[in-house]
Order: sequence, then C-alpha cells, then structure tokens
Amino acid sequence: MIEALTSYQQRNNEQLDHWLNRLPNQDLALIEAMRYGLLLGGKRARPYLVYITGQMLGCSIEDIDTPASAVECIHAYSLIHDDLPAMDDDELRRGKPTCHIKFDEATAILTGDALQTLAFTILAEGTLSEEGEVNRIKMVQVLAEASGAQGMCLGQALDLGAENRLISLQELETIHRNKTGALMRCAIRLGALAAGEKGLQVLPQLDKYADAVGLAFQVQDDILDVIGDTETLGKPQGSDQQLNKSTYPALLGLDGAINKAQTLLQEALQALEAIPYNTECLEEFARYVIERKN
Amino acid sequence: MIEALTSYQQRNNEQLDHWLNRLPNQDLALIEAMRYGLLLGGKRARPYLVYITGQMLGCSIEDIDTPASAVECIHAYSLIHDDLPAMDDDELRRGKPTCHIKFDEATAILTGDALQTLAFTILAEGTLSEEGEVNRIKMVQVLAEASGAQGMCLGQALDLGAENRLISLQELETIHRNKTGALMRCAIRLGALAAGEKGLQVLPQLDKYADAVGLAFQVQDDILDVIGDTETLGKPQGSDQQLNKSTYPALLGLDGAINKAQTLLQEALQALEAIPYNTECLEEFARYVIERKN
Repeated sequence: MIEALTSYQQRNNEQLDHWLNRLPNQDLALIEAMRYGLLLGGKRARPYLVYITGQMLGCSIEDIDTPASAVECIHAYSLIHDDLPAMDDDELRRGKPTCHIKFDEATAILTGDALQTLAFTILAEGTLSEEGEVNRIKMVQVLAEASGAQGMCLGQALDLGAENRLISLQELETIHRNKTGALMRCAIRLGALAAGEKGLQVLPQLDKYADAVGLAFQVQDDILDVIGDTETLGKPQGSDQQLNKSTYPALLGLDGAINKAQTLLQEALQALEAIPYNTECLEEFARYVIERKN
Repeated sequence: MIEALTSYQQRNNEQLDHWLNRLPNQDLALIEAMRYGLLLGGKRARPYLVYITGQMLGCSIEDIDTPASAVECIHAYSLIHDDLPAMDDDELRRGKPTCHIKFDEATAILTGDALQTLAFTILAEGTLSEEGEVNRIKMVQVLAEASGAQGMCLGQALDLGAENRLISLQELETIHRNKTGALMRCAIRLGALAAGEKGLQVLPQLDKYADAVGLAFQVQDDILDVIGDTETLGKPQGSDQQLNKSTYPALLGLDGAINKAQTLLQEALQALEAIPYNTECLEEFARYVIERKN
C-alpha cells in the first residue's frame, strides 16, 4: 500500500463522516447502513486520485475534499447494489458482511439510492476554491456521465449480460472501461476540474492515463481473484470463476493477463510524460495498481 | 383529469424520449427498461407542477423543460425500486407489469440507479433561461435534498419501518411529507428557480402550498385504495390493507380522511392568496388532487 493513501483515506473518512452527521434521523437503519457502506474499509483509490491530481495542479487539499467525497459516495453505492442477491449475490465485502446481510435487502437498496443522491448533494453544496467554483456544474455533469447509463451502470448491465457465456477480449474491455474505468477517469477529471482552467488544459493526457490505469486496475483484480488469498482480498478467492465470469486470466491465460497489466502500466506512464507538472504521485499510483495484493 | 395535464404530459414524454435517445447501446435491456419505466403511463403530476409554477412566474415553456424532466426521472426511479420484491413487492403499476416483472430484478435495480443519475445529467446539461441559469446549482441542490436521506429515501425508510405495526397520525404524516411530499415540493421549487430571482421571492408561500397539496395527494391515494377500483387505479385495490400499512382511512376513518383532504385543500388555497401572480392553475391542481379517481 502507498503510504500517502492511508493518510488521504483518513481525511476522506472524516469528510464523509461530516456529511453523514448532517443528515436527520441518525438512529435510523438507513443512516447506519450509509455509514457502514461508506466508512468501513476500502482503499479509497478514487478519492486518492482526485486528491493527487488536484494537488499536482496546485490545489490545496481543502479545495479537493468536495469532489473526493462525492466520487466515493458513488463508488460505495455501486458496491452495495452490486452485492445484492439479484446482482452478484455476495455475502462478504472488505472482509465484512455485505450491506444486505448486515441489514436487509430493502435497506441495502435504499442505502445505495441515498448514497448516490448524497454524491450530488456534496458536489452542489461542498466547498470549492474560486477556480473550482467555475467548474462546479461541469463536475456534476462529469460525475453523472461516469455513473449512469453511459458509464458505470452501462458497464454493470453489460457485465450481467455476459455471465455464463464466453465473451471476446474486446467485449470484456468495454465492460470494464465502463464498469470500473469510467469512475476512475471521473475521479481524475474531478481533481483536474477543481484546479479550474489549468486542469482543463491537461484533461486529454489525464484521460489517457486514467483509461490505462482504470483497465489495469481491473486486470489486476482478475489476477488477484486467481492468485490471491481470501483473507488478504477480504472476499472469497475464486468467486469470478464460480460465477462463470469472463476474466483476463480466463481469456489470456495468467501470464497473458500479467503482460496486459504491464503494457497498460507503460501506456499510463507514457501519457504522464506530456504533462508539465510533477506527476510522481500518479506514476507511483499506476505502479501500485498492478503490484497490489488486494 | 385536468385537460392541460395531458398536453404537458405529452411534452414531458417527448423531452424524456429525447434524453433517452442520446444514450448509447439503445438495444440494451437497461435502456429499454429505462424507457419502459419513464414513458409508459403515469400522470406526470410533478413535471406538471414544475411547468405551471414556472409559467405562472413568466417563464416560457422551453425554459422549464429541463427541471420538469429531471424531477420525473427521480419519480420514475423511485417507483421502480419501491416495486421490487424486497420493498413493496408489487407486480402491477399503471396497469402494466412492474419493471422487475417485465425484465428482471437486476435490470430493475440498475434501471432505477441509472434513472436517478439521468436526473442529474439533465439538470447539469439541459437548457435553461438566463434567469434560470443563475439557479442551476441551486436546482441540483434542491433535487438532491428532496430525493435522498433527507427526503424521499428517508420517507421510504420510515415507511418500511412502519409496516405491520400501528403508528400515530404524526408518524404517518412524517412518512408522507418525506416519501411523496418532498418531491412534489421540489417540483414546485424547481419551477420557481427556473424563473430566477422572482421565484425565490415567492418560495415560502409556494412551499406552504406544496406541503398541503403533497400531503393531500397521499391522503387521496389512501382513500382511493379503499374506495377505488383496480381497473381505474392501475394497481390492485386494497393493496395497502394487505400489507398492513397504516393509512389515513385506517387512522381517521374514511370520513375523517375525506375531511383531512378538504382541510389540506383549504390550506393550499390560502397559501396561494399571498402570491401576486395568476395562481389559477395551481388552484385547479389542488382541487384535482383530492377529486381524482386514480
């Protein structure tokens, strides 16, 4: 784990806790479940990307809290809904009972719904710098585009349609570029938008980086499902195989998948070369993505 | 049915169809289900409220399409999720199979998710007048506040917690002020915000009107569940009783509930008196709410 990730993780948790504390009816199962889904575990990779992108472009950390929190709410909601019995039917997430196991299915559905809404509340109400303020509506647009039927939900729909049948490598890439890639790209875009005009100028290069890193993240997830162990993963090893899901190791072999991840890393690093700022953290993150064990 | 409602309904359908047509992968079950949930039937009471409020304040109809479409997306998503087996477990809605019956449960969950996102895409990207533009972020804020854990989701969570037990009249009101009232109030607020500064000035009176009409809408729904017939309602008559749900007729008796609706109508009409514009349409809508048969 990158050391900086842990400190941003803590900052992000405090921010999310602040937003949850503002809600009424704190003793309600809904609020308890929102807190459970948002705050217990998780790498906070997406908020981290928002933070390091924004800071690379000269934002102070306070100016990036808002988009970092918003993107994590979308991620947390998507995990809760993906784990539902009608979807992936998972009982374990981050080593803990999934939301519908800990609470119940109705609460889990509602909790996901309310976390999605909270993301937009945060973007509409949270603090931004003067430069970021100019891009506030653009941030709402970018987050919605990445989350809905043009992004994450599309990816999840394509993924459901791909269960129990053999798909091509191209189909698999389309699924993951939407299912997980869209929100990681969104995180980086939000970090750039928080920096105002400066961020808009490097957006094309950042998109290239994000596309490669987002896909590499998924390839490594697939690899870990084969070679990782249940305890480190926090979820049952081999669960993709059980669901007959197409994965990179299944389509390319384990060595092929490892090569694919390496190629994507090189693509990501190359994209960074054209960015005239200190890209060290983004570089380190790209390496971490394909070296991580969970 | 108010005649004008039908023409606005058609306009709203065209607008929503336009937004759906912009999405990729039109042949996907997800998109088909979004279209099914958004366009087949429904009174379009919320868009209607956006339209008549905005027009009362001098907006042209084109300047109100955006918030009218956004609020209907939230309403449609909430119906799809409320109908799920883990929630109200309804098989019929607007006289047709509910989304999870017509498609499947996973698709219904995703469809609701994507429709919620679409609401925010529409608010972020849709056309607004110059006066409305100033309030665009405020619109996102108002829609999110009405939809999430401070509004509609809160109401639904309270409603789930109230099944199979006797609740007080005050608890019932809290449920409905959130579950259905919040989004109707939001519709009226969005119409006002589309008119810029002018709208902000009459917001307190409009809120009073909306609170009374929103609650009256639910009281009449409860009454129709007792005295309506399945064909006109488009859903099984008596379904509240079957779920042991507390309703106004159950707590106040049928006559008591009818009186309650009348009192709320008077409150709504009184709130309109302090508004220095032509409030005829809002008046007519308030009367329609407690006179409607479905």
